[in-house]
Amino acid sequence: MAAAGLQSVALIGVGLIGGSWALGLREAGLVDGTVTGCGRSLDNLETARERGIIDHATTDLRDAVGGADLVVLSVPLGAVRGVLETIRDDLADHAIVTDVGSAKQCVVDDARQVLGDAASRFVPGHPIAGNEKSGAAAAFPELFRGRRVILTPEADTERAAVERVRALWEAVGASVACMTAAHHDDVLAATSHLPHMLAYSLVDTLSRWSDRDEVFAYAAGGFRDFTRIASSDPEMWRDICLANREALLEAMERYMADLQELREAVRHGDGDRLEAVFSHAKATRDRFVAMLES
Amino acid sequence: MAAAGLQSVALIGVGLIGGSWALGLREAGLVDGTVTGCGRSLDNLETARERGIIDHATTDLRDAVGGADLVVLSVPLGAVRGVLETIRDDLADHAIVTDVGSAKQCVVDDARQVLGDAASRFVPGHPIAGNEKSGAAAAFPELFRGRRVILTPEADTERAAVERVRALWEAVGASVACMTAAHHDDVLAATSHLPHMLAYSLVDTLSRWSDRDEVFAYAAGGFRDFTRIASSDPEMWRDICLANREALLEAMERYMADLQELREAVRHGDGDRLEAVFSHAKATRDRFVAMLES
Repeated sequence: MAAAGLQSVALIGVGLIGGSWALGLREAGLVDGTVTGCGRSLDNLETARERGIIDHATTDLRDAVGGADLVVLSVPLGAVRGVLETIRDDLADHAIVTDVGSAKQCVVDDARQVLGDAASRFVPGHPIAGNEKSGAAAAFPELFRGRRVILTPEADTERAAVERVRALWEAVGASVACMTAAHHDDVLAATSHLPHMLAYSLVDTLSRWSDRDEVFAYAAGGFRDFTRIASSDPEMWRDICLANREALLEAMERYMADLQELREAVRHGDGDRLEAVFSHAKATRDRFVAMLES
Repeated sequence: MAAAGLQSVALIGVGLIGGSWALGLREAGLVDGTVTGCGRSLDNLETARERGIIDHATTDLRDAVGGADLVVLSVPLGAVRGVLETIRDDLADHAIVTDVGSAKQCVVDDARQVLGDAASRFVPGHPIAGNEKSGAAAAFPELFRGRRVILTPEADTERAAVERVRALWEAVGASVACMTAAHHDDVLAATSHLPHMLAYSLVDTLSRWSDRDEVFAYAAGGFRDFTRIASSDPEMWRDICLANREALLEAMERYMADLQELREAVRHGDGDRLEAVFSHAKATRDRFVAMLES
């Protein structure tokens, strides 16, 4: 479903996600006016302007959002509340605000507490897309094609605002689903936040191995794939851990209990148990890949 | 360094690794005679013959190795000893025997105990290559290009046999290094065996999640990459765990201690600690990728 063109977009944080969305919206012909980018790094803003992601650059949040009909927050989760407090009084009455953060309950709470009644035009969102790269230089308009975006509107979120944001995601090739923020956070703790912890922790462990250089020299492609997500942005992931702490802790506990059982099977040389776990995991994973490809 | 052509090769186990090596050796013009494949699955042997990996197929080990000048063991580690016991008396005096197993001390021990003095012509090997696929259908001749192969000869291994096997690996594009079997097992426990445990365990944990279908539905590309190795062959990995138990247990202990520390940082909302771990891991992993690409 197409949406009418945007007159003024404020992109708060011009990174891989926000930058790619802006590029995709432009390519879809949905930006009639201008995109203003706001961020901390002048170099990154300059890159964004050179690449045609944004028309104007500013480091002043209030300048960026004045008159915007769409405000996209694409900043680490820990920065959301501060940004909302700063821009609150400068938001146009008709402005729709949305975000792309990887945890949603914290953002919903921030919006409600800071924006009050105006939180009804805040549409919490999370595109399940991205890679380990960061910054405007990494943005590309096809990033969301075939990907899923989760929106977590509240009961009092304006339906028109939700539909507008949905249409803007669909315009760049994503499919959109709605669920509660709490449910989103549980699901993502399992499929995204937990694997990131495991990958970061593995690289951390190996970096302190006595034969470190040799260990990495003989690591193969499997290791490279397995640890790809350990090259993700540390500040962003710090904030995700803090924001989704309870669900992540629960996921880590369950994982560690299972890993301990596996370790006991190794310790006792329990080949039947090992083969059963591996076979079950392989069957599950193969079904998952078949599902992705269908 | 090129090697003189092989007159008769016996491929015991015709899977991804053995099959790819045979295809690569053929492509390099190093097979003057015939390749005989031996395995349990007639379907797989038929596939191997159709794809030109082998000339003859047999399910009889002694038939396969009679007169062969090169015998390649490409079977799960737990099957190595039994194969050696079966073929021992049929090996030609000049035959070189090598293997491709992912753990080496157990294979060295098996060869010494079963072959006795003839173990001096057994060259233990491990190509650091492969993917999650199995069988003759998955084999391709370029698999080893730019990859590393580790050989773990003993003090009394015939130097000429080691150099012959080295040349046969170099002929398919691999670079070859020698180290002790024990050291190989320590290094591979860290970079390969441990990550496989983590990936298998993660998929196993998620397969028993209450929202399992939804969890997998919202898993993104990062998850797919992270769990790729959990689609590896369960029997092969059961045997690797049993064969390299001590080194793997040590690696799992160290990993689990670090993961517990990370969990405590999440529990206490220790953002500084989380960011430090993530930053250190990212820097290490980015250096690793730069090294791979250079």
